[in-house]
Amino acid sequence: MAKHRQLHLGAFMRPAAIHTGAWRYPGADPHANFSLEQMRRSIRRLEEAKFDAFFMADHLALLNMPIAALMRSHTVTSFEPFTLLSALSAVTERIGLIATASTTFDAPYHIAKRFASLDHLSGGRAGWNVVTTANPDAALNFGYESQMDHDDRYERAREFVEVVTGLWDSFADDAFVRDTESGVFVDPARIHAISHKGPSLKVQGPLNIARPPQGWPVIVQAGASPAGRQLAAETAEVIFGAPPTIEAARSFNADVRSRMAAIGRAPDTLRYLPGAFVVVADSMNEALERRATLDSLVHYDSGIGSLNSMLGFDVSDHDPDGPLPEIPETEAGRSQRERMVNLAREKGLTIRELARAAGSYSGFAFVGTATSIADEMQEWLETEASDGFNVMFPWIPGGLDEVIDKLVPELQRRGLFRREYEGRTLREHLGLPRPSNRFFPPEHEVLTRTSSV
Amino acid sequence: MAKHRQLHLGAFMRPAAIHTGAWRYPGADPHANFSLEQMRRSIRRLEEAKFDAFFMADHLALLNMPIAALMRSHTVTSFEPFTLLSALSAVTERIGLIATASTTFDAPYHIAKRFASLDHLSGGRAGWNVVTTANPDAALNFGYESQMDHDDRYERAREFVEVVTGLWDSFADDAFVRDTESGVFVDPARIHAISHKGPSLKVQGPLNIARPPQGWPVIVQAGASPAGRQLAAETAEVIFGAPPTIEAARSFNADVRSRMAAIGRAPDTLRYLPGAFVVVADSMNEALERRATLDSLVHYDSGIGSLNSMLGFDVSDHDPDGPLPEIPETEAGRSQRERMVNLAREKGLTIRELARAAGSYSGFAFVGTATSIADEMQEWLETEASDGFNVMFPWIPGGLDEVIDKLVPELQRRGLFRREYEGRTLREHLGLPRPSNRFFPPEHEVLTRTSSV
Repeated sequence: MAKHRQLHLGAFMRPAAIHTGAWRYPGADPHANFSLEQMRRSIRRLEEAKFDAFFMADHLALLNMPIAALMRSHTVTSFEPFTLLSALSAVTERIGLIATASTTFDAPYHIAKRFASLDHLSGGRAGWNVVTTANPDAALNFGYESQMDHDDRYERAREFVEVVTGLWDSFADDAFVRDTESGVFVDPARIHAISHKGPSLKVQGPLNIARPPQGWPVIVQAGASPAGRQLAAETAEVIFGAPPTIEAARSFNADVRSRMAAIGRAPDTLRYLPGAFVVVADSMNEALERRATLDSLVHYDSGIGSLNSMLGFDVSDHDPDGPLPEIPETEAGRSQRERMVNLAREKGLTIRELARAAGSYSGFAFVGTATSIADEMQEWLETEASDGFNVMFPWIPGGLDEVIDKLVPELQRRGLFRREYEGRTLREHLGLPRPSNRFFPPEHEVLTRTSSV
Repeated sequence: MAKHRQLHLGAFMRPAAIHTGAWRYPGADPHANFSLEQMRRSIRRLEEAKFDAFFMADHLALLNMPIAALMRSHTVTSFEPFTLLSALSAVTERIGLIATASTTFDAPYHIAKRFASLDHLSGGRAGWNVVTTANPDAALNFGYESQMDHDDRYERAREFVEVVTGLWDSFADDAFVRDTESGVFVDPARIHAISHKGPSLKVQGPLNIARPPQGWPVIVQAGASPAGRQLAAETAEVIFGAPPTIEAARSFNADVRSRMAAIGRAPDTLRYLPGAFVVVADSMNEALERRATLDSLVHYDSGIGSLNSMLGFDVSDHDPDGPLPEIPETEAGRSQRERMVNLAREKGLTIRELARAAGSYSGFAFVGTATSIADEMQEWLETEASDGFNVMFPWIPGGLDEVIDKLVPELQRRGLFRREYEGRTLREHLGLPRPSNRFFPPEHEVLTRTSSV
């Protein structure tokens, strides 16, 4: 159980630096998000630091933001996850490789095959971040007039995961005989076709690739809605979310684990690793200044565009240094609108200040020294708020280097993070069990091996 | 024009060794088709030999063959092309990387994005082998009850290529400003959304990745039917086919080029590189013996399964050493059935001999010494039968090594093949022009640059 007392750390790398101002930060590489050289350097440094995984998100459209924000965003061009992670698998040996793939706009046969292939190529280091793709612009790129509704997306996602894991189980782990004497390459009795016919998907099988080294690549999810939590409780092995506070994380973590218990899943088979923006410096003042510098690099036009989008109402014509006007009720994005309206009311922020908050990174952040951040992370771990974090870097390369050079050694000194990889696969790093094959369970394998002696 | 007097050589690597008996050949690696180590070694050797490209085909189902053949096939597990080629891009610098992707069972947004990403990661070395996927088993893996019919597949393919190339042109080559001072990352006037609404596809765009270094990855096709030839004449830059003889190749080559002329395409923008199985040895006898050994390694059960499948009629119950019985007309695979019936009639082959022919590799082959094969290849080039070949290896690693160590130096000695790469991209190796951006033609680019000074 020692594993549970240690943090797991993923690196969230799309965008390579999450903050909207990152590419303009002094010393930052403005090309970092789309530079193979920076990606290669980053993953090698993360592997030196013994991170669990390198996490490459994906989008199936230009991000749905106003032109004024889009033209100032370094995320507008990015590598595709499977191609990038496969290339990076060739220059690393241990670090996990997690790719986002959509259950709404892709086919389970493709997804099963690509992850299986990445898992084989990397020696068991692949993970699948299962997303249902909320961006309505994505639907327009895949032949639909409008986005499938939320609950339908989650229904399809559940069936999709079932089909993909079934396809991964097409071959028994010992199906390949490769007997040059007899000429038998594979035992056909050790191949299974799922012949799936469900409400959303029809897939015959079998998959045309051997079972992945990990059995199944690690299943990752981020769903926060009730449907998302339920799907995660049923299928996720890693949850990547965005809780605003430690209390929210603790309550989310408890909720998902109670949902797991309710369906008979061992709570120990889940790692909860929320996203955390980390700005570390030698003094608290310096860290706060860095964050302030980053925020100041978000252009007003970009911020106001994001603010309008969050409010569902155009405030561009109002005095930037005046208060927020009365915002009428609109259909879209209620929680985002309320967050902004409350900020304006409670802290008395001007439109300019609100635009800055809306346009920069507004998720959970650790800003401080190695000691102060290690204290906070330790509290998260010890009070069961999370099992670790998916770290987001403020800029590349310097912001990543400081996490590795300052924070990680402090976590290691406290015994909160590994100094060496103990295993070879992503499952082993995370302390997760290897799933048995549903069509060729272990007993059967033993029986077959015995009978063929 | 010196380029035209030289051969272009691709390596067809799925299966890594094409012959059904390859994995059983003395000294062969029976795991080669699914061994990253062998794939890495192979591509490095091919790059040393200055091959134009490494070609990774794909299948979207277990090959549709009888169980007796499938259980003896080393192709039953293979890597997925995008993941494999991306991994190999990281360990090579010059050789082209061609992947098969289906226009029937994938979405243009995915295909455009993955090839663009592979092209960026490899520095302009990607090529797309456009296939419509004839295997009816594939349809069952993608939610369909039966395969889309041939002409509908080709109609969709034409539209699909149009959409994908349009998506590649989403960003002007100079769209990315990355001005840290002003905060402008990309010029929104240099982004185009195709807003395509056609009979088979609806795609909004823009693509969320910068234009590929090659403008467009090289378009490769293999269609042999009239619809396939027409699509190739309209869109292909490399044709990979399987002509049975030099005469058939010459006539195919002339036909496609006349179709190109008819629609106003310059015939010089096409490279015809048919598949060729190459067995090279120090003497003709040795080469013939190797071929015979390979053929002898095809198990009778595998061969008879393939023969039954080609005949559309089960001859398993007949005497293997007797003649082929009368074969009734059936619906499926007329040309394959006739080929087997004619072989039986004209050469008086027994069922066992026919099964061997059906079950081994039955396409065009060069079998001989470096000198005899170089003579033949030179004839193909000089009589305009082809611009080179996609070489298929008899076994891995030895069969590949012999092509590289024996045949390639002889071709180089004759000035028929390069000794060094002259360019960096696949287009440059093939002597193909870089396509201009249809939405941002060169004149316009000059104008914009001038006006923004």
